[in-house]
Amino acid sequence: MGTRKEHDFIGELEISDDVYYGVQTFRAVENFNISHDRLKNFPRFVRALARVKKAAAMANCELGLLDKEKESAILAACDKILAGGYYDQFVVDMIQGGAGTSTNMNANEVIANLALEHLGHKKGEYQFLHPNDHVNLSQSTNDAYPTALHLALHDYLTDLATAMGYLKKSYERKAEEFKDVLKMGRTQLQDAVPMTLGREFKTFAVMIGEDIERILEVRKLVLEVNLGGTAIGTGINSHPDYPKVVEQKLREVTGHDYKVAEDLIEATQDTGVYVQISGVLKRVATKLSKVCNDLRLLSSGPKCGLNEINLPKMQPGSSIMPGKVNPVIPEVVNQVCYSVIGSDVTVTFACEGGQLQLNVFEPVVAYSLFNSIIMLEKAMKTLADKCIDGITANEKICSDFVYNSIGIVTAFNPYIGYEKSASIAKEALQTGKSVADICLERGYLTKEEIDKILTPANMLNPHMGENK
Amino acid sequence: MGTRKEHDFIGELEISDDVYYGVQTFRAVENFNISHDRLKNFPRFVRALARVKKAAAMANCELGLLDKEKESAILAACDKILAGGYYDQFVVDMIQGGAGTSTNMNANEVIANLALEHLGHKKGEYQFLHPNDHVNLSQSTNDAYPTALHLALHDYLTDLATAMGYLKKSYERKAEEFKDVLKMGRTQLQDAVPMTLGREFKTFAVMIGEDIERILEVRKLVLEVNLGGTAIGTGINSHPDYPKVVEQKLREVTGHDYKVAEDLIEATQDTGVYVQISGVLKRVATKLSKVCNDLRLLSSGPKCGLNEINLPKMQPGSSIMPGKVNPVIPEVVNQVCYSVIGSDVTVTFACEGGQLQLNVFEPVVAYSLFNSIIMLEKAMKTLADKCIDGITANEKICSDFVYNSIGIVTAFNPYIGYEKSASIAKEALQTGKSVADICLERGYLTKEEIDKILTPANMLNPHMGENK
Amino acid sequence: MGTRKEHDFIGELEISDDVYYGVQTFRAVENFNISHDRLKNFPRFVRALARVKKAAAMANCELGLLDKEKESAILAACDKILAGGYYDQFVVDMIQGGAGTSTNMNANEVIANLALEHLGHKKGEYQFLHPNDHVNLSQSTNDAYPTALHLALHDYLTDLATAMGYLKKSYERKAEEFKDVLKMGRTQLQDAVPMTLGREFKTFAVMIGEDIERILEVRKLVLEVNLGGTAIGTGINSHPDYPKVVEQKLREVTGHDYKVAEDLIEATQDTGVYVQISGVLKRVATKLSKVCNDLRLLSSGPKCGLNEINLPKMQPGSSIMPGKVNPVIPEVVNQVCYSVIGSDVTVTFACEGGQLQLNVFEPVVAYSLFNSIIMLEKAMKTLADKCIDGITANEKICSDFVYNSIGIVTAFNPYIGYEKSASIAKEALQTGKSVADICLERGYLTKEEIDKILTPANMLNPHMGENK
Amino acid sequence: MGTRKEHDFIGELEISDDVYYGVQTFRAVENFNISHDRLKNFPRFVRALARVKKAAAMANCELGLLDKEKESAILAACDKILAGGYYDQFVVDMIQGGAGTSTNMNANEVIANLALEHLGHKKGEYQFLHPNDHVNLSQSTNDAYPTALHLALHDYLTDLATAMGYLKKSYERKAEEFKDVLKMGRTQLQDAVPMTLGREFKTFAVMIGEDIERILEVRKLVLEVNLGGTAIGTGINSHPDYPKVVEQKLREVTGHDYKVAEDLIEATQDTGVYVQISGVLKRVATKLSKVCNDLRLLSSGPKCGLNEINLPKMQPGSSIMPGKVNPVIPEVVNQVCYSVIGSDVTVTFACEGGQLQLNVFEPVVAYSLFNSIIMLEKAMKTLADKCIDGITANEKICSDFVYNSIGIVTAFNPYIGYEKSASIAKEALQTGKSVADICLERGYLTKEEIDKILTPANMLNPHMGENK
Repeated sequence: MGTRKEHDFIGELEISDDVYYGVQTFRAVENFNISHDRLKNFPRFVRALARVKKAAAMANCELGLLDKEKESAILAACDKILAGGYYDQFVVDMIQGGAGTSTNMNANEVIANLALEHLGHKKGEYQFLHPNDHVNLSQSTNDAYPTALHLALHDYLTDLATAMGYLKKSYERKAEEFKDVLKMGRTQLQDAVPMTLGREFKTFAVMIGEDIERILEVRKLVLEVNLGGTAIGTGINSHPDYPKVVEQKLREVTGHDYKVAEDLIEATQDTGVYVQISGVLKRVATKLSKVCNDLRLLSSGPKCGLNEINLPKMQPGSSIMPGKVNPVIPEVVNQVCYSVIGSDVTVTFACEGGQLQLNVFEPVVAYSLFNSIIMLEKAMKTLADKCIDGITANEKICSDFVYNSIGIVTAFNPYIGYEKSASIAKEALQTGKSVADICLERGYLTKEEIDKILTPANMLNPHMGENK
Repeated sequence: MGTRKEHDFIGELEISDDVYYGVQTFRAVENFNISHDRLKNFPRFVRALARVKKAAAMANCELGLLDKEKESAILAACDKILAGGYYDQFVVDMIQGGAGTSTNMNANEVIANLALEHLGHKKGEYQFLHPNDHVNLSQSTNDAYPTALHLALHDYLTDLATAMGYLKKSYERKAEEFKDVLKMGRTQLQDAVPMTLGREFKTFAVMIGEDIERILEVRKLVLEVNLGGTAIGTGINSHPDYPKVVEQKLREVTGHDYKVAEDLIEATQDTGVYVQISGVLKRVATKLSKVCNDLRLLSSGPKCGLNEINLPKMQPGSSIMPGKVNPVIPEVVNQVCYSVIGSDVTVTFACEGGQLQLNVFEPVVAYSLFNSIIMLEKAMKTLADKCIDGITANEKICSDFVYNSIGIVTAFNPYIGYEKSASIAKEALQTGKSVADICLERGYLTKEEIDKILTPANMLNPHMGENK
Repeated sequence: MGTRKEHDFIGELEISDDVYYGVQTFRAVENFNISHDRLKNFPRFVRALARVKKAAAMANCELGLLDKEKESAILAACDKILAGGYYDQFVVDMIQGGAGTSTNMNANEVIANLALEHLGHKKGEYQFLHPNDHVNLSQSTNDAYPTALHLALHDYLTDLATAMGYLKKSYERKAEEFKDVLKMGRTQLQDAVPMTLGREFKTFAVMIGEDIERILEVRKLVLEVNLGGTAIGTGINSHPDYPKVVEQKLREVTGHDYKVAEDLIEATQDTGVYVQISGVLKRVATKLSKVCNDLRLLSSGPKCGLNEINLPKMQPGSSIMPGKVNPVIPEVVNQVCYSVIGSDVTVTFACEGGQLQLNVFEPVVAYSLFNSIIMLEKAMKTLADKCIDGITANEKICSDFVYNSIGIVTAFNPYIGYEKSASIAKEALQTGKSVADICLERGYLTKEEIDKILTPANMLNPHMGENK
Repeated sequence: MGTRKEHDFIGELEISDDVYYGVQTFRAVENFNISHDRLKNFPRFVRALARVKKAAAMANCELGLLDKEKESAILAACDKILAGGYYDQFVVDMIQGGAGTSTNMNANEVIANLALEHLGHKKGEYQFLHPNDHVNLSQSTNDAYPTALHLALHDYLTDLATAMGYLKKSYERKAEEFKDVLKMGRTQLQDAVPMTLGREFKTFAVMIGEDIERILEVRKLVLEVNLGGTAIGTGINSHPDYPKVVEQKLREVTGHDYKVAEDLIEATQDTGVYVQISGVLKRVATKLSKVCNDLRLLSSGPKCGLNEINLPKMQPGSSIMPGKVNPVIPEVVNQVCYSVIGSDVTVTFACEGGQLQLNVFEPVVAYSLFNSIIMLEKAMKTLADKCIDGITANEKICSDFVYNSIGIVTAFNPYIGYEKSASIAKEALQTGKSVADICLERGYLTKEEIDKILTPANMLNPHMGENK
């Protein structure tokens, strides 16, 4: 294939006819060689860019700023991308200077050249349809880029909520399966009072259920966008009706209730929504990590640990210790959580660094949030499929802990009082005898009374008032 | 004054009759000498503890678990604290081991001894009214402590929202005062397009307005408490109706719609709400810091900076440079924000560290969140009173920037096209001539046309469509 | 007592004759009401300020810039502070705007008034000896404040290193005491291969030993100071020989090898040393937290956990569960570590926020670093005295774990090969039989051989080569 | 191509003959689909693994544990990788559970199959040379993985130090070029006293020079490795002379002075070195970010900012504002710094999470550190080549700031006293007149005196003593 010449105010460049992007994308690729991740690695973002450009073209046409033919060509180009094609033309590094200008221009150039082909022209014949004058019409990077970011975040957060729901179901199945497995509850890693293994897993389910609510709550915030603000939010060089019209088009194109912010100057520089999303992701990660810590603890052993549950064996655990199997899935999930928590600090720094009418560091915000969400999503699915679903209980170990524990003496409190209970506890700890035997020996309670008190149902439910 | 003897299962201690706290508080003071902050430094927390104990006593009495006389005595004791007294008896270090047991026992002991005095007994005569058996009845540290923490957070967040509203009004007054001050907007610290100084301050107001919404949103989450769960959430040793009754009493005592969580095992170990609050505080801090950065930038100078605004002079700025005055108030607010952002990491670590049925690190969470909220509250008020309210504008400097800028050429785009505008911009940058003069010289527009285009009203509002 | 009038360029104030500080301190107290910590809460910092002023006065006198009488008065004033007095006169909030100007002026004013009294004048008679003209002579806040910060950090880090050495010895005593207690090593919480409890504690000792080296290494970095740079490091308005002379005086006054930086402009704005110290403190905290996690894990139980060691009982652990004792000391130490780790982010933000010739956020850096160091120091001592020293081993539990474990099959590898070992491991896990019994049953090894292989000495030392 | 069958204790798998990795790698690829980065993306790590395996084979052979033929085959295999081949066979996700077992096995399997081919066997004929029995001989993941990590870190840190030196030279050239450009120094964004633009760039050079020292200092720490510790550091199943011998081989293979740790149990679980490295990277990032902030500030404008310097124009800055050029290179470097700072929190979490005899989270530590180092390296080079080298000074603007500033009145202090200087400053601020004119008007100094005082040489050097 041949080449074409393109120029910008820096100068002229020769570009292969292979590619749909143009001179500005080319410069950005040269300028930014930082991460090894390019726009194309984040398809939901590429698609979000196409949707923004589509909505803008529709609005421009309706307002008489763009003729019907050009609109059709731009729409056709966007639809080709939305159908899953041309992702490989989005080649700029995710981490870039310029507040996303290079990302916006990469989209403008690819769409312009696709549209030119649609119109029967050659790539680069921008006199017929121009990346800036037509594809970017009524927009600035400063509104188009964050709007696309909002769209992509909405979709990624939806994916995450789905994966969380999937994991929740997985926990719930185990909660049901283990609902009669009596076990010892522990506080501060010390023996406390009895509960069931089912309740332990139900807790995980309830916990992630609340996290899903928080994700959906924060997802609502991205529905407010600053499209129409152009350079700094004053809407300079745009039609006064543009915000109203493009809002409607964005809703059509996405199927979601996007809303153009009332104060576009504020919306253009305010990155609070990113900090908030990052904070919620951190919350999710913090609790997911805690669950993984618990799973690793409960499955510790097999002989020198708690060994209350067995995680499915996913791979040999040691090249030197025969038969050793490790909790590799919770371990990898922990690491994802640590990454998410670290990224939150990156996002915070980037958002604090905004100055005056714009935050120029949105590209690293986008990159960090996308990575956090996608890794959490994969981690949730991996945890459900490769760990939770295959967990089995060591019921005897669980119940032996309860009956051998000193903590169950708490259940005697309402019958024999705290003082006698404490004295039994002390003897049990010194002698190793069971609290039930000591209680029986001392004649505080009969065998039948003890058996009744120590039924799971009794130990798991509050009862003080009834026994007074 | 004399002394009394108290004992716990570790042994006996001699305690001054001066003090209302007892043996367990005494041990805690010896064990934990870590921060220099004690419970008494956080009055809202002390009061929250009194409210929890009050509600519990009322519920215990209603359920027939506590006689009327003891209830009255406990209520009287709590009310003395709620009236603002005896704070100095809350002496345990805020950072403590034991998941808050020492805090809970400090409250139990002080209230028991106040109640004993109310009943005509001496301090330490626990046979008549016992810190554990009566004040702590139907409770465990594991539900009483986090419930008190929720109550205190609710009140501290309310204080914060009030201070934020106060600062918002301060911004709004300046937005109104400066609404006609034309100035240059800047993106990426480069000259962009015109706006007004009023809009700059309005942006601050809108921004903090959204933050207030987020604070109130997250405040709702603390209304769910785990009171009634006792040790691990199974409610062991408590009356089955206790949660329902104590919920009602808590509402009476506080005047807020507290709600006992449905799944108390989950609620006892879940620290998601603290991570979420901390994340929102971080959001608030991030944006507040950005505002302070802007204020320092806009007031930079007086001769070698932007000098668009003057901050009130609060104190001499240098011992060596005559007349130097520094933006000390924004500077101190920035530092508060950095503290809040750092504390968020502390909270995250503490919440991730919970194991199995309890998070033992809640004391450092409480300490960090309280400090963050209180410092933010003070910073907001300080910023309003000692900085924003006294800001004045250097109107001439602001408008000179606009008229001397090259950026205003953007406003010519719709009339003469991007190409000609760009050419004017280039010449202006090289020669130092104004864009208006060049435009006139080249005959692109008449003086009248230029003057009309460069009216503030025209530059601040979108107009493309109208001129096409 | 009466009052005196003082003024600065903001105006005049009436100040009580009680106090040694003056108008600028007074303003700062009014301006900064942020943290509840004042300079006086950090005596090493107050003393460092006195030392800097003392060295400066000596240098000024030697260079003929200050007469002998004034020098003597200033020195006498400084010495009164260094003797432990007048700390309560250092009243400015630790978190302050102005890059430390208020702290510097608080010192200048207190020293000036003490010196005036020494000379037989009244407080406020600055015509005889002036806070700025004489006490602050040849200095600016921008060099005096960070120099004092360096001095204070040096001393606080020394305290910390001492406490770390104290804890190290505590670990070492236990390493010796437990050197023959055979126990199971665990990797990924799964049974691995045998070791001794003594080695476990020796590891803690070696680990903190390396941390001490890192602390001493980073302490060296604070020996470089920027005294003599005045406003921005050009040394404007100071004598050309001043840096050289004051360096010598600083060494005399402190007894440490302080060195004035070669490039004072760089030294005035570079806060790398604070980030580095904070990073090392974070390292120390991270590892200390890990040790506490291990202690809590090893002492978990008493019946439903590992229960290999007993921590000393410091306080009752529950108001509801008789006999429960919690690992409160490691728990409080963990929380200190989380605070230190969070503060590191605060320090990072503050240091990143410096602009051009100065970092104005040093006060929050000072506050954060001081708090981190002091809390770590207290935590180290608390951990040694109230936990490590009282730890006892449950030797039988430890050795039972070893002999019941499957992991010891690893020790058979060199004799019977990996395949047979793996097969024994599998049967042991399924049947619950010991690996020794299975090995014997299958006739792979004799009782004598097995006994010899399973001696502690054999299991703890590498031996493969010898048996080939 | 055909397939072969491989099995581990989980079961049998069919593997394409295309690939050199085996069953354990295959499982790991299925288990860990988390990041999109695989081992092969980090060539220095792949090479480090090959070096560790090479050294181990040499040591095993010398100790008589491995025959010469197998050693040669393993060495040949390692050398093929070291020559730059077969990277694509390292396919496991960088973020993985199992403490690096999958990475270690990926290396073992690829090297075994390469060695088998070298010996004339087919892939998978492990009876002739086995991944575990021969390639991994005398090793465990727990020593081989962290040792390879140390080797890779050493090399990556060397790359970074080189890039930093490159940037330092770039700064130094500008320091020389701008050494006579007089400009105003600023503290707290307020006009302070004069300096030169050369000194501003020299500061950057000195600063990064100190950072290079810190990098080299911390690089030394990775020279201590735990090779020879096997499972937990007791060296179980290894030859007693192995550590000594393999240390020597490692030095031969790498050319660096690697040293086997004295206490291998400690070395196996201690991750302090990673926290330390991460802390130093954070230091570097914090200061690099500050430099970029300064560059963006100094080049702000062109008309409404400081505009003291011009950054090279790298790409068009706006699709809507003609002629706008943005400081895209400093902006992208800032974002790299934020990523590095966030990653530090990830590393801290991972290192704190280690338990007992091992830290299982080293994979995310490796991933985070590698990314931070590589991104910093690229950022340093990008900053030098695409920004610093092309910076030009606006000399007139710089010097006008000085002569129009009020701050230069500081230079009059030694001649006319602080009081008169302050009075001049006040008038200058109110009237806009220059301080020199006012001084002349008032007759404090003659024109000649003023001119002499305001020479650059005079303003840049301390002089107080001489004029007294």
